[in-house]
Amino acid sequence: MTTLRFTKGHGTQNDFVLLMDPTGEIDLTPDLVRFLCDRRAGIGADGVIRAITAEHLAAGAAFAPGTWFMDYWNADGSTSEMCGNGARVFAAFIERDARVDLSQGLGIGTRGGPRTVTAVGDGRYAVGMGKFRMADASGAFDAQVAARGLVPERPALFVDMGNPHHVVALGSDDELDGLDLSAAPVVTPPPPAGTNVEFAVARAAQVRDGVARGSVRMRVHERGSGETRSCGTGACAVALAVRSWAGAGAPDVWDVEVPGGLVTVTIDGDTTVLEGPAVLVADGEVTAP
Amino acid sequence: MTTLRFTKGHGTQNDFVLLMDPTGEIDLTPDLVRFLCDRRAGIGADGVIRAITAEHLAAGAAFAPGTWFMDYWNADGSTSEMCGNGARVFAAFIERDARVDLSQGLGIGTRGGPRTVTAVGDGRYAVGMGKFRMADASGAFDAQVAARGLVPERPALFVDMGNPHHVVALGSDDELDGLDLSAAPVVTPPPPAGTNVEFAVARAAQVRDGVARGSVRMRVHERGSGETRSCGTGACAVALAVRSWAGAGAPDVWDVEVPGGLVTVTIDGDTTVLEGPAVLVADGEVTAP
Repeated sequence: MTTLRFTKGHGTQNDFVLLMDPTGEIDLTPDLVRFLCDRRAGIGADGVIRAITAEHLAAGAAFAPGTWFMDYWNADGSTSEMCGNGARVFAAFIERDARVDLSQGLGIGTRGGPRTVTAVGDGRYAVGMGKFRMADASGAFDAQVAARGLVPERPALFVDMGNPHHVVALGSDDELDGLDLSAAPVVTPPPPAGTNVEFAVARAAQVRDGVARGSVRMRVHERGSGETRSCGTGACAVALAVRSWAGAGAPDVWDVEVPGGLVTVTIDGDTTVLEGPAVLVADGEVTAP
Repeated sequence: MTTLRFTKGHGTQNDFVLLMDPTGEIDLTPDLVRFLCDRRAGIGADGVIRAITAEHLAAGAAFAPGTWFMDYWNADGSTSEMCGNGARVFAAFIERDARVDLSQGLGIGTRGGPRTVTAVGDGRYAVGMGKFRMADASGAFDAQVAARGLVPERPALFVDMGNPHHVVALGSDDELDGLDLSAAPVVTPPPPAGTNVEFAVARAAQVRDGVARGSVRMRVHERGSGETRSCGTGACAVALAVRSWAGAGAPDVWDVEVPGGLVTVTIDGDTTVLEGPAVLVADGEVTAP
């Protein structure tokens, strides 16, 4: 039996169990992660995020000692490179519990490489998402997607955010709401390592504070997880795809409505910044078997 | 913003957020219950159980002052009469946090009437489940059930545990495992208020401590909830149905394997006692919006 302090938090309803462990005292094993993420027998979450300083974890070797490292685990007990929604919640967690100042941005370590997190006020955080790659900058379609409730098949655009995405444009909210994503959409040709599939409906652009902002609504089917309430890299892929379809003069800032809330994607050259809320819901002690 | 102390616990993976509130200080509203049970934005549970003394709740008027009352709410914000798995977790909670002695049994109040909970040691609790009623004591079938993955339709036996159940006998573990309960089974004639449907595979009886024990494995589709990991009244209904089919001399004690674990049902005249584990997993503070 192990007793651990934990925090539960979420970013647009992508939820995490957070552990504060600066010097690596916790023996974080796949079994413990699976228990913590078990929604019936444990706490329940999409993943576990441990806040640890880089020198206390082999994966942190590339970072300067003292760098906060986001040790991210999936609910199935495997580790993962990065998670955009998780990085916001991690930022809120180290800001509150390790009292670091994020107002000017802070470099953190992840298995996917260095990232920058910034507190932008009002419980919102911005995360540098690294470089993206699109097969064809002109937004030409390079795949076909079939999904339940969608007739006929639609063309899709591939976006590489470090993980693979295929973005499909739909014509209306009704079409988006009518999708049945309880089964994985079928992508042709089949991507060798699977893919995440986003369905998007663009809305009229708006001007706020003198800046033109695109607006788009989306749903996502995540590789290995099924439909989720939010996907950070998916929101960035949608903003990139919709901007490429909108052509010259399209905004670089996109408000992206996911089922779990609203995030904002800013496209900056060959990188994106994801901004959105992070909420720390509960704190407590959990007893693992 | 409200901050509340909470405990999370489960009985055979039927899970609950527990609130200790002897004198009714908490303004427990449907909105607060829905937030606490939200598996992404809140804590996450099948229901909320408040421990309150009877005189502090209108629903407790029938009970003597000082009686512990199990104020049970479903995840959707509605209240419910009783929950057998929940009563075990409630028992573990008041035993630990209100320091009541349950070793000789304690009468508690529920919206379904008085119940008795007893600590039987080793983290296990027994709950008196009240009177049952069967349409035909001989175990004659009175309905037909169709389910995905099950060919042909099967006959079913109606058991009234205070809530309605239809129990279907299957021939093998393969048949049970092959069921697709993502859709509700169809019962003919259709029960006016819906029903819970159990599928059961009987196993060889055993003798333990000189007592013959029946053994049965089950899955359940709960009215309004879909397939669940455990259903206390469903386990009792299965034991009653299988005993009636086994005929004269069948055991009164049944080990019932549900997806979330193992419970034991003892049939005593026109009542049943449900025994099984209860686990208090975590304690903490939650901030409601």
